[in-house]
Amino acid sequence: MTTSPLALPFPDLPPVSGVMLRVARAHYKAWDRCDLTFAELTPGTIVAGVLTQSRCPSPEVEWCRQALVLGRARALVVNAGNSNAFTGKRGRAAVEAIAARVAVQLGCQPSDVFVASTGVIGVPLPIDKAEAGLDAAFVAAPCGWREAADAIGTTDTFPKGATTTAMVDGRTVTLVGIIKGSGMIAPDMATMLGFVFTDVACEPAFLQAALAAANARSFSCITVDGDTSTSDTVLAFATGAAGNAPLVDHDCPGADAFRAALADLCRQLALLVVRDGEGASKLIEVQVTGAESDRSAHVIAMSIANSPLVKTAIAGGDANWGRVVMAVGKAGEPAERDRLSIRFGNTQVARDGLAVEGYDETPVSAHLAGQEVEIGVELGLGDGRATVWTCDLTHGYISINADYRS
Amino acid sequence: MTTSPLALPFPDLPPVSGVMLRVARAHYKAWDRCDLTFAELTPGTIVAGVLTQSRCPSPEVEWCRQALVLGRARALVVNAGNSNAFTGKRGRAAVEAIAARVAVQLGCQPSDVFVASTGVIGVPLPIDKAEAGLDAAFVAAPCGWREAADAIGTTDTFPKGATTTAMVDGRTVTLVGIIKGSGMIAPDMATMLGFVFTDVACEPAFLQAALAAANARSFSCITVDGDTSTSDTVLAFATGAAGNAPLVDHDCPGADAFRAALADLCRQLALLVVRDGEGASKLIEVQVTGAESDRSAHVIAMSIANSPLVKTAIAGGDANWGRVVMAVGKAGEPAERDRLSIRFGNTQVARDGLAVEGYDETPVSAHLAGQEVEIGVELGLGDGRATVWTCDLTHGYISINADYRS
Repeated sequence: MTTSPLALPFPDLPPVSGVMLRVARAHYKAWDRCDLTFAELTPGTIVAGVLTQSRCPSPEVEWCRQALVLGRARALVVNAGNSNAFTGKRGRAAVEAIAARVAVQLGCQPSDVFVASTGVIGVPLPIDKAEAGLDAAFVAAPCGWREAADAIGTTDTFPKGATTTAMVDGRTVTLVGIIKGSGMIAPDMATMLGFVFTDVACEPAFLQAALAAANARSFSCITVDGDTSTSDTVLAFATGAAGNAPLVDHDCPGADAFRAALADLCRQLALLVVRDGEGASKLIEVQVTGAESDRSAHVIAMSIANSPLVKTAIAGGDANWGRVVMAVGKAGEPAERDRLSIRFGNTQVARDGLAVEGYDETPVSAHLAGQEVEIGVELGLGDGRATVWTCDLTHGYISINADYRS
Repeated sequence: MTTSPLALPFPDLPPVSGVMLRVARAHYKAWDRCDLTFAELTPGTIVAGVLTQSRCPSPEVEWCRQALVLGRARALVVNAGNSNAFTGKRGRAAVEAIAARVAVQLGCQPSDVFVASTGVIGVPLPIDKAEAGLDAAFVAAPCGWREAADAIGTTDTFPKGATTTAMVDGRTVTLVGIIKGSGMIAPDMATMLGFVFTDVACEPAFLQAALAAANARSFSCITVDGDTSTSDTVLAFATGAAGNAPLVDHDCPGADAFRAALADLCRQLALLVVRDGEGASKLIEVQVTGAESDRSAHVIAMSIANSPLVKTAIAGGDANWGRVVMAVGKAGEPAERDRLSIRFGNTQVARDGLAVEGYDETPVSAHLAGQEVEIGVELGLGDGRATVWTCDLTHGYISINADYRS
């Protein structure tokens, strides 16, 4: 697998106190690499999560949804190479077996164990391989973030991680995240799984609200091909080891700083997924302003970001703003042709429903020749705004998905 | 442009009494071909239409929407090579100029003249070329359906037409349709325009209701890439020359026969568009049954038909039913994993939320190797059903849309 041209180097990530990582070979596929990740979390760690809206979710997603109600976590297990989705009772049994084995090892409740899997759909996760992999992980030497980021990947072309800090209650708290996926796309090999670890002390409800808010501006604002996974999972774990006065609600000192840091981290992670979008050669930011509401702006922005005609035009370096008009028109949200303005980068190409007279295509072509492309749409109706990110649609996408046999 | 491998030969189409066709060169682009089509309709012809739902429609669409209220038509003008969309007042002026010139020629009202245009977005239709083209058409010799089907095309790789008949009031009425487009896709060169001509006598409201019903099962059930045009237009003209007692409502003798014939004709035309889908190598029929409602079934079927991962899998001849599960799950409609069954052709691959034990992939692979692929999804929830058609997503689509410069 060729590394994406949009790849970024894996950053130096600091340890998060209270988090111990180990990886092992469960041999879920015929490959010689670690494919089981085991994160042990200090007692008292709290957890929040956002999960796929798919009506056909994996048993892992259902397990996490139930366990999140309790808000406590002692471990995370991630399986790569088999998503365990659409496998009925046998799939559920595999998740329960993993949770039970970890619970015995750590002396905790099975509901303290979070499980996520990614890979082919429709094949029950083999319990014997999972158990053998776990037993190997239990006795493995602790590893770093890079090893874990590698072990959770499938068709990813580069490992993805990010970090940030926040000042809370006079202490510096650390946030680290790792993520895998080549977009929101789901099947077979490309589920998006993201994990955030922090040493902040906080209540589960606070962490859940902060994660939901961050998600709305990050993971929910990216798309590679509009195909939503059966297994998409983002979990945030807070060990409390920083020793700050626990964050309870938005009014606590430091709450805003932590929320901002978490939002920044999620945005970094989300953009890394787009950078590894299947076949991607350009990162596209779509900014919609002047909509009737933020929600309406988001729908229009996603309509543009999911339009194969817009994405192929960008791949071809073509300032084809007519395709942007088309995507605005088909979104079904309020829009008035005669108020619509469109720009590529900083160059206005259409204003008030008309092509700009004699506009100079030179700066637009230069902008589109780069790796990062910005499309701006001003609707002229209100104050609603949204920003989403996607990648272009290239021959590489077709090769990866059509020339591949499940 | 290579002819689509799914192309069908242009059929023998009978004349429709009351319809006179002429074509001319307006030179909307630097090409040497007829690109203006002028259909003269006998006095008393009535008209119905369905138009794009785009919030940014072309002035032609707005013109037709207003003129349809009156329900009468004396002429249709179709321009190929320039969609005239997103061109503000100058675009509107071009449509009005065309209608005025034809009205003078025929001694009718401008509102009796229907206009449709297809091609590049954002360039006002040049009035001088349109008027010169019309003047040439007025004195041209009448032509046949094949010439008109060629003249309305843009990126189409083959001309498309169909016919059928119905017995109404003891008389055989004829229906003929021509259509252009490489899908619902819109911009630049690929708007869908469809025109149906019949000699039946009927009231405008009856024709409109019959066309709307036919559209719901045909044009609204096809997708190439989910990108909806700014100019999609289907118009039906009824000259009344068959001399039957006019059809007024559903209870008239022959009304059912005519409605069935119109639905059949629209379905034929819609499938021809999918067969010319950009880059298409396979025609895909998606049948969803057992949904909570017909509407819900349609949403799920379109989610499958628009999924790039499903479409690339079919392009690769890969029975990747996990991608179908994904597309059902992301549709947001009621679905229960443990009741879901999926088949390719006649072979069941998943039943009640599980892969069929030891199913034989041989017949599935043989089915997927053909040019016509059928995907069946049974939800097990109710009686709602829908059938939609699409094509696969291939390197050809990327080449046409990314390697092309507007």
